[in-house]
Formats: sequence, structure tokens, C-alpha cells
Amino acid sequence: MEKPSISQRAKNAPPSPVRKLLPLADRTKKRGIKIYHINIGDPDFEVPEKILHTFKDLARTTKRIPYASSKGLKSTIQAWQKYYSCLGINLTENEILITAGAGEALVIVSAIVADPGDELIVFEPFYANYAAFANQASAKLVPVSLDKKNNYHLPNRLDIISKITPRTRAIYFTNPNNPTGTVFTKEEVQTVVQIAKEYNLFLVSDEAYHGMSFDGKKCVSALHVATKAEKQNIIIVDSVSKKLNVCGARIGAIISKNQSVCDAAFRFAQGRLSVASLEQQMVIPMLTDCLGYISWLTKEYQKRRDAFIISLEKELGIYINRPEGAFYTMVKLPVDDTEKFAKWLLTDFQDKNETVMVAPGAGFYATKGLGLDEIRVAYVLNEKDLARAAQLLGLAVKRYNSTKK
Amino acid sequence: MEKPSISQRAKNAPPSPVRKLLPLADRTKKRGIKIYHINIGDPDFEVPEKILHTFKDLARTTKRIPYASSKGLKSTIQAWQKYYSCLGINLTENEILITAGAGEALVIVSAIVADPGDELIVFEPFYANYAAFANQASAKLVPVSLDKKNNYHLPNRLDIISKITPRTRAIYFTNPNNPTGTVFTKEEVQTVVQIAKEYNLFLVSDEAYHGMSFDGKKCVSALHVATKAEKQNIIIVDSVSKKLNVCGARIGAIISKNQSVCDAAFRFAQGRLSVASLEQQMVIPMLTDCLGYISWLTKEYQKRRDAFIISLEKELGIYINRPEGAFYTMVKLPVDDTEKFAKWLLTDFQDKNETVMVAPGAGFYATKGLGLDEIRVAYVLNEKDLARAAQLLGLAVKRYNSTKK
Repeated sequence: MEKPSISQRAKNAPPSPVRKLLPLADRTKKRGIKIYHINIGDPDFEVPEKILHTFKDLARTTKRIPYASSKGLKSTIQAWQKYYSCLGINLTENEILITAGAGEALVIVSAIVADPGDELIVFEPFYANYAAFANQASAKLVPVSLDKKNNYHLPNRLDIISKITPRTRAIYFTNPNNPTGTVFTKEEVQTVVQIAKEYNLFLVSDEAYHGMSFDGKKCVSALHVATKAEKQNIIIVDSVSKKLNVCGARIGAIISKNQSVCDAAFRFAQGRLSVASLEQQMVIPMLTDCLGYISWLTKEYQKRRDAFIISLEKELGIYINRPEGAFYTMVKLPVDDTEKFAKWLLTDFQDKNETVMVAPGAGFYATKGLGLDEIRVAYVLNEKDLARAAQLLGLAVKRYNSTKK
Repeated sequence: MEKPSISQRAKNAPPSPVRKLLPLADRTKKRGIKIYHINIGDPDFEVPEKILHTFKDLARTTKRIPYASSKGLKSTIQAWQKYYSCLGINLTENEILITAGAGEALVIVSAIVADPGDELIVFEPFYANYAAFANQASAKLVPVSLDKKNNYHLPNRLDIISKITPRTRAIYFTNPNNPTGTVFTKEEVQTVVQIAKEYNLFLVSDEAYHGMSFDGKKCVSALHVATKAEKQNIIIVDSVSKKLNVCGARIGAIISKNQSVCDAAFRFAQGRLSVASLEQQMVIPMLTDCLGYISWLTKEYQKRRDAFIISLEKELGIYINRPEGAFYTMVKLPVDDTEKFAKWLLTDFQDKNETVMVAPGAGFYATKGLGLDEIRVAYVLNEKDLARAAQLLGLAVKRYNSTKK
């Protein structure tokens, strides 16, 4: 029986390495096995009190739930404006557009910077969904490899420039970085800003983890270092998900001082009408005054990092990279194929009815063959759970390798 | 100063005819002028009590707001499943994916059915945002014109088939229709289903207004009439926005019995992570048992339609098409250019400090030159406000034409 065929880009659409094993995990849970989720950045902290309080107020007073403006509610835009002014970055309301998380922001931004066949430079390993957004826009990711030995900091300028072709339209840059936890220095941010300017490219700066850096390292926004002219090249993608610990609220933003970008974002946004009105309202008071909270939250993650890295090194007997911010790191495991291993953890492994879930590494690379022996881990659980997750991972690696012999 | 250039599709992205004048309307309101909004389908009814009740429950109990599954919360999927079973359509959970409104559903579906350069057939006038979604996917809309004299029902089969080329990938079909209010008959639905099957195309059936038909007319879903084989060609796009009167909640769905479509939708959905968790939960009890509410709501709209059409005909002195469902109709105005007229309503016209806002017609057509003397109106206000809106429109047309002489 003939069926209509889905598009080439639909066939090519990559599954998320973080989420594609979740259906398998559901079956594991049904067998009564507890899973420690270090595969996904979905922290176990409660939502900030101020957000829950606003939520209760809304529940008491709401009678209608009309569309918001396609740009976002004026007061949500103003809350982002206030947040950025606390960072020392002045924005007008017209330079901000509210999106359904950084995810939707990147879908829209990818359509704004690239036509089909255009190229987008990414630093590899990269936030895996960039591959999804590029594919959805029928554009192509061109990877610049980062060196684990250099804690995934930028290579030299020439290594980046050598990837630029006449089809290159943008550089995608995540700072602080997911999946490596790298916090790029002021000089590194300046380097990518200057390259974007020099080669007339957009710099898509994903700053969803801004403020979340450890050991006194400073987070530098692309808008902190850019000259007035360079700012025309910059598009910031942001989200409250991690900073305010409300992943499920889906409130993000596209920020740019380039009015053509803002106008185009507004027109794309009109197609999908608006972002959930209640969730936009819910985050306003908190977003307006949140640097103290982010600072507290970051200290908690630093403690978790320290505890987790030590446990992991002990259990696995290997050196683990120290992430400088966010709450992820890439780990090279002594197994043949982390995709197989990650599935095996869910289907065949358990210790006292418990197992651990990880994100296999290959999805964070565009270069074929890279990441096959790596996983990405998120240290978003409490210290006790993280210690147990590390222990399970250590046990599992030993058992996996012995069953294969 | 050289700036990076936005993509061709970003340059081409059409503004929404419904929303592009809203910034102008904000300025009008600042001048102290009240605007009757018949430009947009944002009804003045309160949200159903059951939804507000669930909202209050959530506000009382929520401590964490984690990501939902990329497919949607299991219980929200089950609520859609239940809603469809009430319509006599059996779906498995795997045939449903939750989206941020029908808008996001159409962004994803357009990327699934079309590669850049592919063609999508639409019936003209069409839901204006189809032009935005096609453009975002770098695909091309190919219009089949509907005849006002035929109350915008389908033309004969050959008129549709003649538009199919080797690049055609899908037919977009809105039933009940926005912007015309047409409710297509069972035979018409069968016609488009059969054409899709015969030419191996997808039928993207936008059924956001299903159930909202007047004068005893029956709403027929594409899945009601399709054979088992034909169902493989059908993708339903749905939303709670209008049926449950919660436009701002942004909860929609992609529904298909074609597993390749569902798999691709899931992979695209993984990129943007998830849909707002609270709003997904908020609609569950209501969606599970809502046919009675939709029936009540539809009767209210029928009363509004009757009152509005009579007022409009009286004030404008012209015949107005009787919409058969939803809450829109296209109106041909005796003015030179409805785009200019719609702006003029906001910038130059007022009667007792009041004016009316309408959506200019050209944006609902792909054929250049069509719709220039039409507007789309939404009768979503109470009867008194609708009568005043009609009166203002009548006054405005007279004054606009006299100032032009």
C-alpha cells in the first residue's frame, strides 16, 4: 500500500540523545526499578517561593486566559529588560521577544539566520538540539572541535576561521556551556564576537546558563564585550528554565539590537500567535529580581559538582573534567559504545532494584565517530542521590564489560 | 556599516493580518480611545469553571515544575484520546503529540510534509498563518480559490486536481473554516480525503473549530470518513483554544495514524523539549468531558452571528455571507483598500471616543490582488458590543469614503 512520504528533513530529524531513551525508561520503571536521572538537566530543587506565590495569586484572580501579544506580554518583556539591566546590559522593549523556552527561540532564530543549505558553525561537543534546529531549517551544522584536554575552551582563531565558507551564516555559541560546563573567558567571548563581525556572520549566543559559574569565574555575555557595531551581529537566546529552576514553564527570549532580526522574529512569532499567558505572568516578579537566587542556586550546584566528581572518579577510577559552570560534564567511559551501554543500563542492569540513566555522547557531535565512548551527565540531583548514581555507574561499567567478555 | 543579512525566508515572512496592526492599536488606546476588537478570534467568554478549578488545585499543590515529555504529559494525551473517542474516533496514545497550540503543530507538520521548494495546496481565503508556516519551512502555498457565491464551499474536483504538480506534498484544509465560517459537508471532506489518497499527498486537516457548527449542520472530521488506507494520509491539527475558550493556554495536538509522521513529530518535538507543564495539566479534566460545553458555546456564537450579521447588513447596506460555524466571516466592503481603511480606523476615525479594529483581507489570499476590498471579522464579543462594532463600521465606511472625495 502506497503511503505519502515524509520530507527528507523529517527523515533526517535527529532524536535527542537526552530524551530518546525515555520510552525505554518508562518500561524500566514499570518493572519496579528506580532510575537516577543524570541524563537530563531537570533539577530536583523546588520552584522559587516567589514564583509559586505569583502562581497562587493568578489562580485566585484569573477569569479569562486570552492570547498574549506575539511579542510576549509587555510586563514579561519588561521583566527581562530589568534582568538584563541588572547585568549591566541596557535593552529597549523592542529588542526582546518572548518565546516558549530557548527551544522555540532557536527554532525561530535558525529560520532567521539561515536559508536551506546554509551553514552554521558550532563548537563540538554542542547542545544536541542545535542539530535538530539546523535540520528543521534545512541548514547544515559545521563543527569546530573543542579539546577535552583544554577543558573544552576555544581552539585558536585560525581553527575557527578555517571553517567559514561563503555559505556560513552564523556561529552558535553556548556560554556557560551545555554539555561541557565550560565558562568561556572574556577574551574568548571577544574572539567569537570579533570573528562574527569580521566575517559578517550572526553570533547566536545561547546564554541560558548565564550567572551559573563556579570558583569565582565570571560569566561574560556577548553583549558585555561587543562594540556598538558588533552588537548588530549578536542574537542572544535566553530562558528562565535553569536560572529560575522552572524547566516546565517554557519561558524564553530572543534578544537582539539588530532591528531586522527583531522584526523578522516578530513576524515568525505572529504565525504561532503567542506564548502561554499564565506561565509568562508567573515568572515576572521573580525574573525582575533574581540575581541573588541565581547566586544561591549556583553555590548549590558547585557543591553537587564537587561531591559528584569525587564520587565518579572514585567509582570509575578515571579522571573527570571539572565543569566551570552550568551543571553538566562530558565523561569518557571505558566501554565500547555508550549508546549500547545507556540502553543496557535501562534494560539489563540493576543493583538493589536501582539503575542510572545517562545521555550517550554521539548526539553531541556532528563529526561522525566522535563521542561514541562518552556520555553527558547532569548533576541535578541531591548529593546523596548523586553519590548513589556514581556508584551505580561504576558498578554498571564493570558488569557491562565483564558480560561482554 | 555592513550588517549580517537575515535569510530570504526571514525577509519574506509575512506579518499576520490579524495582529500586525496591534502596535498601532496600542497607540490608539493610549489616546483614550476604546477599540472593539473584531479583528481577532479572542472571545470575551470566561474560561470554563472546570479549568479554573483545576488551575486552583494546581496552585495549591505544585512545588516543582519539571519538563513534560516531548510528546506531552501522558494524562494530557489521554485527555485528547478521550475527547476523540467521544467523537467516535479511536486513537492510541502513540497517535497523539501535544503542541504549544495549533500554531506550533503547524510549524512542525509543515516541516514534516515539505522540503524546501515543495508545494502545499490551500483553499483561498485561508487561515492567514498558513502562509507564515509555509514560508518558515521554505515551502510554497498553491491556492485553490473558493467562491463567495458558493459560501466558500469547495469547487469541483477538477479545479483542485489541476493544481497538483510533482512538487505537491500536502493539502491544507480547515474545517470548520477560518476565515470564512464554512462547515464542509461529509461529501466535501470525502473529496479531499480521496484526492489526497489518489495523489499520494498528505491531508493536513485543521480541526481546531470542530463541533462549532450552526443551524444543525454536522462537523465531519477527516478521520470520520477515511478508509483504513486513507487514514495513512491524514494529519489532524487540533487545539483547545477555541473549543474550551482558553486561547492563551497554548495547548494543541498533532494527530495521525501514520506512524512515520508521529515518529518525525516526536523527533522535532524533542528539539524544543516540551510544552508548558501547568497549562497541559490545567485543561485535562475539561478536555476529557467537553462536548456539552462546546455545544453550549456554539449556541452562544450562533446567537452572536445572527445579531451581528443583521446589524452589519443594516449598517453597511450590503449582503453579508452567513457563516455556518466557527466565529468568523469575510466581508466585502465598499472601500478602495481595506489595509488602508483598517489603519485609518485606528489612526483617524473615532465616534464618541470609540473605534473598531478589523483584519484586512489580502493576507488571507495567496493570489496577488485578491482580498483588497475584504475584511475578516470575528464575532467574539457580546451582542451589545457587536451591535456597536457594526454601527462603528457603518459610520466609518461612510466617513472614510467621504473624506476621500
